[in-house]
Amino acid sequence: MAQRHFISDNASGIHPQVLQAIAAANTGHQPAYGQDDMTIRAEDLFRRHFGADTICFFTLTGTAANIIALQSVVHSFEAIICADCAHLHRDECGAPEKFMGCKLLTAATDNGKITPATITPLLRDTHIIHRAQPKVVSLAQCTEWGTVYTPEELKTLSDFCHEHRLLLHMDGARLSNAAAALELSLKEITTDCGVDMLSFGGSKNGLMNAEAVLFFDPELATHTAFYRKQAMQLAAKMRFIAAQFVALLDGDLWRDNAAHANQMARLLAKEIGNDVEIVMPVTTNAIFARIPADCVEPLQQHYQFSLWNSHESIVRWMTSFDTSEHDVRTFAESIREQMNSLTASH
Amino acid sequence: MAQRHFISDNASGIHPQVLQAIAAANTGHQPAYGQDDMTIRAEDLFRRHFGADTICFFTLTGTAANIIALQSVVHSFEAIICADCAHLHRDECGAPEKFMGCKLLTAATDNGKITPATITPLLRDTHIIHRAQPKVVSLAQCTEWGTVYTPEELKTLSDFCHEHRLLLHMDGARLSNAAAALELSLKEITTDCGVDMLSFGGSKNGLMNAEAVLFFDPELATHTAFYRKQAMQLAAKMRFIAAQFVALLDGDLWRDNAAHANQMARLLAKEIGNDVEIVMPVTTNAIFARIPADCVEPLQQHYQFSLWNSHESIVRWMTSFDTSEHDVRTFAESIREQMNSLTASH
Amino acid sequence: MAQRHFISDNASGIHPQVLQAIAAANTGHQPAYGQDDMTIRAEDLFRRHFGADTICFFTLTGTAANIIALQSVVHSFEAIICADCAHLHRDECGAPEKFMGCKLLTAATDNGKITPATITPLLRDTHIIHRAQPKVVSLAQCTEWGTVYTPEELKTLSDFCHEHRLLLHMDGARLSNAAAALELSLKEITTDCGVDMLSFGGSKNGLMNAEAVLFFDPELATHTAFYRKQAMQLAAKMRFIAAQFVALLDGDLWRDNAAHANQMARLLAKEIGNDVEIVMPVTTNAIFARIPADCVEPLQQHYQFSLWNSHESIVRWMTSFDTSEHDVRTFAESIREQMNSLTASH
Amino acid sequence: MAQRHFISDNASGIHPQVLQAIAAANTGHQPAYGQDDMTIRAEDLFRRHFGADTICFFTLTGTAANIIALQSVVHSFEAIICADCAHLHRDECGAPEKFMGCKLLTAATDNGKITPATITPLLRDTHIIHRAQPKVVSLAQCTEWGTVYTPEELKTLSDFCHEHRLLLHMDGARLSNAAAALELSLKEITTDCGVDMLSFGGSKNGLMNAEAVLFFDPELATHTAFYRKQAMQLAAKMRFIAAQFVALLDGDLWRDNAAHANQMARLLAKEIGNDVEIVMPVTTNAIFARIPADCVEPLQQHYQFSLWNSHESIVRWMTSFDTSEHDVRTFAESIREQMNSLTASH
Repeated sequence: MAQRHFISDNASGIHPQVLQAIAAANTGHQPAYGQDDMTIRAEDLFRRHFGADTICFFTLTGTAANIIALQSVVHSFEAIICADCAHLHRDECGAPEKFMGCKLLTAATDNGKITPATITPLLRDTHIIHRAQPKVVSLAQCTEWGTVYTPEELKTLSDFCHEHRLLLHMDGARLSNAAAALELSLKEITTDCGVDMLSFGGSKNGLMNAEAVLFFDPELATHTAFYRKQAMQLAAKMRFIAAQFVALLDGDLWRDNAAHANQMARLLAKEIGNDVEIVMPVTTNAIFARIPADCVEPLQQHYQFSLWNSHESIVRWMTSFDTSEHDVRTFAESIREQMNSLTASH
Repeated sequence: MAQRHFISDNASGIHPQVLQAIAAANTGHQPAYGQDDMTIRAEDLFRRHFGADTICFFTLTGTAANIIALQSVVHSFEAIICADCAHLHRDECGAPEKFMGCKLLTAATDNGKITPATITPLLRDTHIIHRAQPKVVSLAQCTEWGTVYTPEELKTLSDFCHEHRLLLHMDGARLSNAAAALELSLKEITTDCGVDMLSFGGSKNGLMNAEAVLFFDPELATHTAFYRKQAMQLAAKMRFIAAQFVALLDGDLWRDNAAHANQMARLLAKEIGNDVEIVMPVTTNAIFARIPADCVEPLQQHYQFSLWNSHESIVRWMTSFDTSEHDVRTFAESIREQMNSLTASH
Repeated sequence: MAQRHFISDNASGIHPQVLQAIAAANTGHQPAYGQDDMTIRAEDLFRRHFGADTICFFTLTGTAANIIALQSVVHSFEAIICADCAHLHRDECGAPEKFMGCKLLTAATDNGKITPATITPLLRDTHIIHRAQPKVVSLAQCTEWGTVYTPEELKTLSDFCHEHRLLLHMDGARLSNAAAALELSLKEITTDCGVDMLSFGGSKNGLMNAEAVLFFDPELATHTAFYRKQAMQLAAKMRFIAAQFVALLDGDLWRDNAAHANQMARLLAKEIGNDVEIVMPVTTNAIFARIPADCVEPLQQHYQFSLWNSHESIVRWMTSFDTSEHDVRTFAESIREQMNSLTASH
Repeated sequence: MAQRHFISDNASGIHPQVLQAIAAANTGHQPAYGQDDMTIRAEDLFRRHFGADTICFFTLTGTAANIIALQSVVHSFEAIICADCAHLHRDECGAPEKFMGCKLLTAATDNGKITPATITPLLRDTHIIHRAQPKVVSLAQCTEWGTVYTPEELKTLSDFCHEHRLLLHMDGARLSNAAAALELSLKEITTDCGVDMLSFGGSKNGLMNAEAVLFFDPELATHTAFYRKQAMQLAAKMRFIAAQFVALLDGDLWRDNAAHANQMARLLAKEIGNDVEIVMPVTTNAIFARIPADCVEPLQQHYQFSLWNSHESIVRWMTSFDTSEHDVRTFAESIREQMNSLTASH
């Protein structure tokens, strides 16, 4: 029987409405490589959500979305500033350095959020020719720790960036979760806050290997079409990527999926909050908890999840659009049992 | 109403059985990034078709398949030899150079096929430190001109390569069409002929943005998993890529689709053979024809197809797994009408 | 005893005046990395020779000069057009592809010179997203075959380039030899002909590992300082590079050295013209001759020179600023003896 | 009159014996690109100093030496660990990322020295495919803060590296200064301590744009010759690079120059130690001092030196092989005067 785990929101499948949209788009021939009608429809929807100047490009992985966004605006001698825990830095196997030839400069964070104060030291003494020149700040909304920047924090950051002639990129692999948590529109936490470029995540919100890169100033996208091709991300049958975004964005599916995942995380936090130490406030769909090291493997025999930091025995449990209340309660029960059996055996 | 064109086999949609396989795989959670059961099944099928030592990796675009195959075996100071008309050289927007930092050396061809005789001059005087060092020969089966290497030609090439310490890569974006045309198994025109690495095309044979890289000597694949990730091609929801290959390879769908496309091309060639000059023998699913320059646009108003060489007014018409006899006859009729109206107006 | 060979003009040493200039610059401390007074003096001299808008950067190898010039103006998805025999393509071990991630497109030539006619086919059908986009034409003056573009040919090429929105780069590793042969100033065969960027060769004209990159439109050089550093070519003790160029350019040394080398080549051609087949007109300081294959090694036991094309048994003999008439006559004698002994033994 | 400053040891000129060696090598023709007799002599000397298995390659800049050493042993998906203050990370303008496509991972340090304890966190949880895979640790001897690793510290580090299947690279831009400070041979602080690869600095010890890359296991150097060429660092007139190293290493010049520079730094420290806060122990030829912010510019009007950290008002004063006692005392006097005038004005 099909089981649902807590390892990642990308362990889930395709939302039924999205799969239905793929099937509906599967008729006749359409020009490949994004010259099709469905792509035009999806682009319209992105403009509706993010503003009339939005330029968008679809990609197949989130790593590619980040890198194509950034490559569009950097030279190889420039640097990209991000959090030390950023997916861009930690989880892309050096793909940014490989593709762009750029240096990443990392700002230390406790909760995944960077601030003007943590960026500032990275901008000092960079006027000389020997230094990679900071050009972009990349933040993740929500962060890799599941935390969320408020609009005020975003505006403060974008003002800071623009004062220092830096562009602001947002890795929105889970942007919908952030918007749902803040009860704001997508635009209110991106375009309206001065974000320049966005990686918009689809796969973690119910799509099948579909992501998008958005630019809110068309000039920034001058070269993007070529870089996407050169990044091996120009999908032949683009209509099936586009169709998924139409299903997600032509109504409230994006928000419903995200809100549900967030709610399931809160439920799990509530269920096990007395039993385990939750090390980060639960705002979106991730729970980070410290559990005894010898609980990890026994629990993983039944449920897949990440040992986030083996050194500190912190695990990550993620919920998804398709996580049910039953899944959560059953998992919570297993956690408690495992904790108790450990206590008993001591 | 949905229409079918002749612009490319990737303008077609998803074969119904393939879409059904995606839907069937859409149940419960599965580990992302290829750790799922369906990926294991698909890998088994590739071994069944290509031999027990086959190692395979899925990708999302054909450009990525080629580059990940090649990157696995080259250093940046080495060179890759291919035909001057190779997709690798002409249609990947410099992605090979960007990702690998390698030089491509091109061999002139008339019909898309390279030979020891055309490779030999590229190997001369390359022993010195100033020269990029040839390491791989990459050929396309079938070629960009729709022509097909016979097993004898392939064996001759692979022997030549191995004598010169070169590896042989095959860009098999349309390998199924070649196998169908030759009435041979996939193995008989790859592994059995000494091919070392293969890009196996799915999208052009009825899949949805699904390709594979195969290595027939596991040692060549030592670093491939990392390079695929670094190439931004490690799909999160890999099971849906794998499911498509299972549908394609766990029976004869791969051959049926390809054989049908080939047959439709032969039918079209027969239908219009008396009216237009066909400039290349029609072996697989492409027809290259020289038509009057002022026929191109009027015809394109009804049917999408490529003006392959604007200078010589050569067009390419491609058929697909879903091209019907009716499509072909209707298109042939349009071509003839256009030709006649042109004649009449002169 | 010190001997002079015919293998390359970079087998020669340092011109005495140049070495003297290095010694004279060796006093006290000067800021590193080009912030020194001597660099300013050399920059002034380049402006005197090439025009007031000239921006120059020194490098340490000719390969670096070419690549820094080109990297300043290309994106990785763009292509560089050059002759199939270009140093850039054949003798830089793929450094252009490695550093720029760009594709080189090659135009076939007989005598090393490209023309609008040979460039034109490379510009066809490049409007689509799958193609590397031509951005620069790079020619060598004099060419790798020792031939020289006339000012008229250069103007025709630069007009053609600019009409097609291409920039024109000149690899002037032996520019002085070309100017001397044409009896023109450096400006008359570069800036005045519409050249946009120049690699100016020093080492082959009597300097010690000193080259320069020149831009005739300052806007093209916006990023060059950073790219030079990133190309590992920002020399610490730049004053000693600059001092060499001051010695070369603050008088006629550049022309005297080149003219002498050219003259010695003509003398050699005259001396052996009746005995061996010279396969390319001798205009500058290289002679290409076809000699019997079994003459090559015996002759190389006494004199170093290149077997340029082993397949066709073509050798290259180069003269240098320090080649003496005696050197030439003695070498000519050896060639004749070798040829005769071969004839005798047959 | 020629003045000596305290900005860097590369602001000095060429040691007279070195210049003499260049002049002595300037006779006749020699094969270019390192095929000359002088290069063979210099290679022998490196073997004498570092051990019989030493393989060496000359380069023209220190950045190039580091990158060619590292590129020889890494794939792009691998990572290089270094100190956060490493020249490799801070002062090479992203050249490592550009050329190798690799990620650098930085370990925080107070005094420039990395340790197993600071490396360890960078090795955690790196087994997964999404992470750049640590492959090399690169340390600087002496460090960017002028501090020196003891042989014991080096052995501890190399043992740690080898246990974790990491290679150990040493950036020895100022290795001679470290050896002089420790009163040990070059071998005793490199080969004997388990260092695998070394960038050996020449320019900062009296040479003119001459550096070397050494490998102590020939297998690591398999591809280096090609990478050096591809890095645009294969000097044409290599004999003049080699001749400098012969002058430096065929006797005690390397040590004399370094020891003198170190001694001058100690003298300066002694002279001004009561007046300014020296923030790092003075072991080699650099002094880091915190001086009042409004002292910096007035002092710089007479003496060039670096404002190392503008935020904390820390300056760096460096001595060189040619710094005289008089230079030091005069400079110390200026510092004191400036400090006093500031005090007086408050």
